[in-house]
Amino acid sequence: MSYQPVSPLIVQSLIDIVGSSQVHSSLSKCTAYGQDKTEDLLFLPEVIVLPKTVVQIQQIMRLCSQNQIPVTPRGAGTGLAGGALPVCGGIVLSMECLNQILEIDEANLQVTTEPAVITEVLQEKVQEKGLYYPPDPASRGSSFIGGNVATNSGGPRAVKYGVVKDYVLNLEVVLPNGDLIWTGANTLKNSTGYNLTQLMVGSEGTLGIITKIVLKLIPLPSHSLLMLVPFRSPTKACAAVSAIFQAGITPSCLEFMERAAIDIAANYLQNNTLPIKEEVQAHLIVEVDGNHLDSLYLDCEKINSVLEQFDCGTILLADDQTTKNTLWQLRRNLNPAIKQYSAVKKADTVVPRAALAELLKGIHQISTQHGIRAINYGHAGDGNLHVSLLQEQLPNPIWEQQASSTLQAIFKLVKSLNGTISGEHGIGWIQKKYMPLVFNPVELQLMRAIKKTFDPTSILNPSKIID
Amino acid sequence: MSYQPVSPLIVQSLIDIVGSSQVHSSLSKCTAYGQDKTEDLLFLPEVIVLPKTVVQIQQIMRLCSQNQIPVTPRGAGTGLAGGALPVCGGIVLSMECLNQILEIDEANLQVTTEPAVITEVLQEKVQEKGLYYPPDPASRGSSFIGGNVATNSGGPRAVKYGVVKDYVLNLEVVLPNGDLIWTGANTLKNSTGYNLTQLMVGSEGTLGIITKIVLKLIPLPSHSLLMLVPFRSPTKACAAVSAIFQAGITPSCLEFMERAAIDIAANYLQNNTLPIKEEVQAHLIVEVDGNHLDSLYLDCEKINSVLEQFDCGTILLADDQTTKNTLWQLRRNLNPAIKQYSAVKKADTVVPRAALAELLKGIHQISTQHGIRAINYGHAGDGNLHVSLLQEQLPNPIWEQQASSTLQAIFKLVKSLNGTISGEHGIGWIQKKYMPLVFNPVELQLMRAIKKTFDPTSILNPSKIID
Repeated sequence: MSYQPVSPLIVQSLIDIVGSSQVHSSLSKCTAYGQDKTEDLLFLPEVIVLPKTVVQIQQIMRLCSQNQIPVTPRGAGTGLAGGALPVCGGIVLSMECLNQILEIDEANLQVTTEPAVITEVLQEKVQEKGLYYPPDPASRGSSFIGGNVATNSGGPRAVKYGVVKDYVLNLEVVLPNGDLIWTGANTLKNSTGYNLTQLMVGSEGTLGIITKIVLKLIPLPSHSLLMLVPFRSPTKACAAVSAIFQAGITPSCLEFMERAAIDIAANYLQNNTLPIKEEVQAHLIVEVDGNHLDSLYLDCEKINSVLEQFDCGTILLADDQTTKNTLWQLRRNLNPAIKQYSAVKKADTVVPRAALAELLKGIHQISTQHGIRAINYGHAGDGNLHVSLLQEQLPNPIWEQQASSTLQAIFKLVKSLNGTISGEHGIGWIQKKYMPLVFNPVELQLMRAIKKTFDPTSILNPSKIID
Repeated sequence: MSYQPVSPLIVQSLIDIVGSSQVHSSLSKCTAYGQDKTEDLLFLPEVIVLPKTVVQIQQIMRLCSQNQIPVTPRGAGTGLAGGALPVCGGIVLSMECLNQILEIDEANLQVTTEPAVITEVLQEKVQEKGLYYPPDPASRGSSFIGGNVATNSGGPRAVKYGVVKDYVLNLEVVLPNGDLIWTGANTLKNSTGYNLTQLMVGSEGTLGIITKIVLKLIPLPSHSLLMLVPFRSPTKACAAVSAIFQAGITPSCLEFMERAAIDIAANYLQNNTLPIKEEVQAHLIVEVDGNHLDSLYLDCEKINSVLEQFDCGTILLADDQTTKNTLWQLRRNLNPAIKQYSAVKKADTVVPRAALAELLKGIHQISTQHGIRAINYGHAGDGNLHVSLLQEQLPNPIWEQQASSTLQAIFKLVKSLNGTISGEHGIGWIQKKYMPLVFNPVELQLMRAIKKTFDPTSILNPSKIID
């Protein structure tokens, strides 16, 4: 697809729409908006536009569709797959000014929000009303809820409460041609026509621009208990995960962390409050929640008896908020800690839960064969393992080549285990070359046709997900 | 769209594909396969084909797409919106021979099944392994799981556990041109490309033919308690529904039944074991479930204290299986009982939960204005009210005209309350004329374009959902 440059005339038209204070093209701004949290990738946009209203977004899209100018919508720029990178140049459309929670509907347990509300802020605001929005990606302190919807993100609580898609009831969306739609209704059930809502969730800004979001909420559980469980064998830790569910318990979190990941994070946080024994090679974090504390203690006892069968060490039970916070801080900082430690390429592998041990073993075999160290952690309860391939001392050309081959081999393994290549980060820019590993040509063609239906001239977030 | 007739040559080709025992065209068969549970509608197909394998289905679709012959896929024929009616003639493709549960994966809490397994059979088979597939439409004793997926059906447990779409992980689908795809992966999380799975769920057999289904399961809760709660005021019963959630409790069922519905069902079942006081005008059925019986009794106490604020009568607590079964039998037979009582037109209204009382009041006002009696029951916890308009003594032409105006007015009310026109039955044939009440022209055009992407010559279940 060929595009037109953002001419001075177009820039003036953009200024006419949003005002001169909302249009930027300095190198520093272009550099800032030309990257997200994906490796060290940088693609300079020609211009950055910060609309304040939905009508302005419609006008911008009409202008760009008439002039064949690529538009890359951007949330908080916390993505790990390059979904917000303006890889074809053109305009970065930052949603940051649409940042209001519009209504918390306590009677219906719903919230209507603009997309640029920080996830954690939204969670706190509804929590003040005794309500709960469970999806909590590690980046929730900085990511926008709109970006969470665009990537169908998850987080630790997905294992009990589901991912973002399970909370999105209805979306207001500006289509590439500037038309405005609502995808559904503000109802818990809906069998009225094709599910445009779920087609939009996880479409990474390639089908439309999300301008309002109606989310389902649930009553806030009043209690939780957290356990940190050490294992000598990472494989046994993975195997224990399935056994907990088979014992009839659905924890509210079930996280896995390899020893190396914990050490790097503890160092990053300069946290020495968790003395970890030398023989420990992995941890599980297990959380249960609910309204009846007695029942939770019973659940923990049952979980303990399961875990003991997998040769776990002494379990730390965190029932006070300080210890819980320490553990979560550690977990949430794994990604930035590893990124600070070394240049890294990430994979967001996901397999059926019981295949986790086999996946972990395979990842280490493959990466070792390629001379690369892999560090793994993730949402074990969902079979969702985040793989970090570390460059460490490898020279650049070898690193790029070997990392690419390693990812290719890991994704092939994932597919052979009935899994797929992204659980919650999305495909964006960096994973799209691997899509043919998990979809056949007919399936890929169907996705292309859907893209074309929404965006016939491919101006909206072009070159993402699929070519 | 114009279609070709099923010529003798085509019939011979069908016989070549599936064998002569699997092709029918007698009047009695055509009559049986020309109707479902929607009113008294009948559309005769030209021929009925019963494939036994996925490859046969692919061959049939290739034949029909090459010859522009309409194909209407059919599950158990329990639909209430006419989704399985061959309104353009052609072929009824009955899925009834693809009726095997292929694998119950206890390690991953998943089941892989063919589409023609009866929902209740699937539930019982996984329950034998201690696993739970919650969606339970009232028709579960006869409906097929494939039809449940095609309509995104729900049932009483949706209020806590979600609808069918929340359990479908992956689908094998034959496209209208005979190509075969899988829509996703067998994983709990998936952010890999467009969500073809959720586009297929609820598409009522208009985009593809579902041939295999991978469903998520959860651990079976070990206990439940059921309450039957009488109210003098149906409006207060509806208002109580929201209050229960606001008190922090998510029941596993929260059903509403008007007095007239219960009387008709009790009469149909010849059941006199539920002596209902004269002043009672509505009931709620409230169920809580979980693994800790003590906690459930505490939940029931809390629910009781909420309900008392809404002037409820004496609550019947069902903690034995016999009483539970009696209550559920009553609830599940409301639909056939009403259908036996009078010719009926149904609506599957759904609104945000707190708008339920207003919806109920509006339905009675509107139907009374049109000289029609409406009886209402449904999944109050989801804001999903099934409306039955009764013909009773009305002469046919007046009935048809007045019922249509009544439905139109009710759906307008639903839309004004932020609801929509089908919560779980689908749009099918009978509700499609109301689609412009809830979707604007851009939204409708987008749905048409999606249909065209999958089925360019509109041979698969034509004239359904949208024209």
